Amino acid sequence: MSAEKTDKTEFERSPSHFGDRITADGSGGWPVEPGRYRLVVSRACPWANRSMIARRLLGLESALSLAVADPIQDERSWRFTLDPDGRDPVLGIRYLAEAYAAREPGYTGGVSVPAVVDVPSGKLVTNDYLRLPAELATEWAGLHREGAPDLYPAPLRAEIEEVSDAVFRDVNNGVYMCGFARRQATYDRAFTALFDRLDALSERLATRRYLVGDSVTVADIALFVTLVRFDAVYHGHFKCNRSKLTEMPVLWAYARDLFQTPGFGDTVDFDHVKRHYYVVHAEVNPSGIVPAGPDLSGWTAPHGREALGGSPFGDGTPPGPPPQDERVPPLG
Amino acid sequence: MSAEKTDKTEFERSPSHFGDRITADGSGGWPVEPGRYRLVVSRACPWANRSMIARRLLGLESALSLAVADPIQDERSWRFTLDPDGRDPVLGIRYLAEAYAAREPGYTGGVSVPAVVDVPSGKLVTNDYLRLPAELATEWAGLHREGAPDLYPAPLRAEIEEVSDAVFRDVNNGVYMCGFARRQATYDRAFTALFDRLDALSERLATRRYLVGDSVTVADIALFVTLVRFDAVYHGHFKCNRSKLTEMPVLWAYARDLFQTPGFGDTVDFDHVKRHYYVVHAEVNPSGIVPAGPDLSGWTAPHGREALGGSPFGDGTPPGPPPQDERVPPLG
Repeated sequence: MSAEKTDKTEFERSPSHFGDRITADGSGGWPVEPGRYRLVVSRACPWANRSMIARRLLGLESALSLAVADPIQDERSWRFTLDPDGRDPVLGIRYLAEAYAAREPGYTGGVSVPAVVDVPSGKLVTNDYLRLPAELATEWAGLHREGAPDLYPAPLRAEIEEVSDAVFRDVNNGVYMCGFARRQATYDRAFTALFDRLDALSERLATRRYLVGDSVTVADIALFVTLVRFDAVYHGHFKCNRSKLTEMPVLWAYARDLFQTPGFGDTVDFDHVKRHYYVVHAEVNPSGIVPAGPDLSGWTAPHGREALGGSPFGDGTPPGPPPQDERVPPLG
Repeated sequence: MSAEKTDKTEFERSPSHFGDRITADGSGGWPVEPGRYRLVVSRACPWANRSMIARRLLGLESALSLAVADPIQDERSWRFTLDPDGRDPVLGIRYLAEAYAAREPGYTGGVSVPAVVDVPSGKLVTNDYLRLPAELATEWAGLHREGAPDLYPAPLRAEIEEVSDAVFRDVNNGVYMCGFARRQATYDRAFTALFDRLDALSERLATRRYLVGDSVTVADIALFVTLVRFDAVYHGHFKCNRSKLTEMPVLWAYARDLFQTPGFGDTVDFDHVKRHYYVVHAEVNPSGIVPAGPDLSGWTAPHGREALGGSPFGDGTPPGPPPQDERVPPLG
C-alpha cells in the first residue's frame, strides 16, 4: 500500500482503484498465463506481503515473477532503486507509477503495492490487495505446484471472509488507525478495538492451530502479516503498546509457528519493514532514526503448536526454498 | 529537568546552573531549617523524582514542603496550573521561572526541576538534580524521621558514586541520548551503551538485592527513576526498544521490589509521566497523542527478591504513607 490518506482529519484507507481480475477463463480480458504478469511488491508492506506468501505457498514463483521495490519511497512513490540502473529488469521502468500511467494516462491517484502488471503492455492490471491472495489460490490453480495447499477451500469461505473482515478492520487497518490518529479519542477507540480483537483471536487460537479449518488459509496469511510487524514497528511507531506480541503468549506462538512455516518467514525482511515505516512517515517520526530493536531472536524459538493438531498444508506438502534471487537476509 | 538543549546537532544535557548548598551548619548562607524551603518538582521528571523519593524515605515531608508542577510546560516552562488560580499556594507564583528570576534578575537560561526555593525570599537556592538526594540524606539528618535509613553511608560513598556515574551516563541520560539523537550513528551508539549497561546491571543485581551494600541507597534511587519510566515512555517514545523492562527479568524484579517499597512507587504518577513526554516533545511526537499502553498491572506482582537477603531500610523502618495531599492515583 502506502496510498494512505494522512492529510485528512483522521486516517482513511483508500480502496484499491484498479480491480480487474485475472481469471482462468480470461473472461475479464486478463487470462492467467505463465510468465505474462509481474507482481510488484515492497517487502515492507503488509498488504503486499499477503500476495507474496500466497505465491510462495502455491509455488507460483516461476509463473508470476516478482519485482521488489525500494522500501523507501520518494515523492513519486515506489521505485526500483534496488535494481541495476534503478530500473526493474523485466518491466524496464524506474517507478511503479509508470505502470499506473500506462494503464490510465494522466492518473494522479495513489500508487500502491501489491500491483500486478501485464508484462507485454506494461499496464497495471490490479492493485486489489485484499482479493489477490484468494485469486492466486483459485484462478491460478492450473499453475500451482504439485502439493500446493488449498488456501481458500470452498466449504470454509464464508467463515474465512467473516474472520478476515474482523482482522482487517481491527487489526490490519487498526494499527494504522492508531498510528495516524490526529485526535486522542480516535486513537483510544482504535487502540481498544485492536486489543479487544487480539484478545478474542488469542482465545480462538488457544485451542486450534489455525484460524479456520485445520490448515493454513488466506485468513492466517492476513493475520500473520500484521503480527510479524507488530513489535518491530506497530508497538512503538504506531503506539499499539498495551503489550508486545511477545507478551501475548498464544498469538506469539501462533505467529512463530507461521513464521517457521516455509513460505511465511522467508518472505519477511525486517530491515525493509523498519526502514520503510520509520523513514517514510516523517509526520510520525521526524528524526528518521530507525530503532535498533527489538531483539528478533525469539522468532525461531520452538512454538509447541503442533500439539493442537492440524497440519499447515493439509493434504499437501511444504514449498521448497525461495528462488536464490528472492532470499531475504537471515534474522538479525 | 527539561532544560535540555535539543536544538543542537545532538543532545546535550545542561549542567544545573544554581548549585548552592543547603547545609546543617549554614556555612554557605543557606542553613537547614524546617519549613523554610520548598521542593518544586514535576512528577513526570526522573531527576525530580530522585529528590521526591529521598524526601519520602527520610520522612522530610513536613520539614521540606512539596510543590507539584503541571506535567505539561508552556513556553514559560514549568507552571502551577494544577493549583487553585494557577498559583503555588506557598510561593504565590504562577511559574517556577519567577523563582529563578528572583534569584538572578534577567536570567534567561533553562528552568528545571527539581528546584529548592527559599520561601521567605522566593529565591531559587539550588537546582542541582544530581546532588540533592545525597544532601537530603546527610545535611538534613537533624530533621529525618525516626527510623530513617542511611541512604548515603560514608563507607560506601566511593562505590555509590562509581555506580551512579555509570548509571547516569548510560541509563539516566542514555535514554535521552537515544530519544533526541539526530543522526543514526549517535542513536546507535547510545542504544548500545544503554543496553550493555542494563545487561551489566542485570548481572550485578542477579545475586544482590540492591546496587551497593545491603539496603537502599541513592544509587538505587537513581536507577529506579529511569526503570520505572522505561516501558511507559523510553521504550517507544525514545526508541529504547531492544527489550522492555518486563523482558529483562532481573531488572524487572528489582524495579518491582523498589516500586513496592514505601517511598518509591507512591511518588510515581504514570499519567503525569506519559503526558509530559508525549505532549511536550512535539519534535519527537508531532501528533501529541498519548499512548494508552503499556499495561501497568505487573508493577504490583510479587518479585521474590527478599530471598537475596538485605533489607530496604537497613536498621531503620519504612516510612508511613504519603501525606493525604501528596497521594498519586492508583495504578490504572
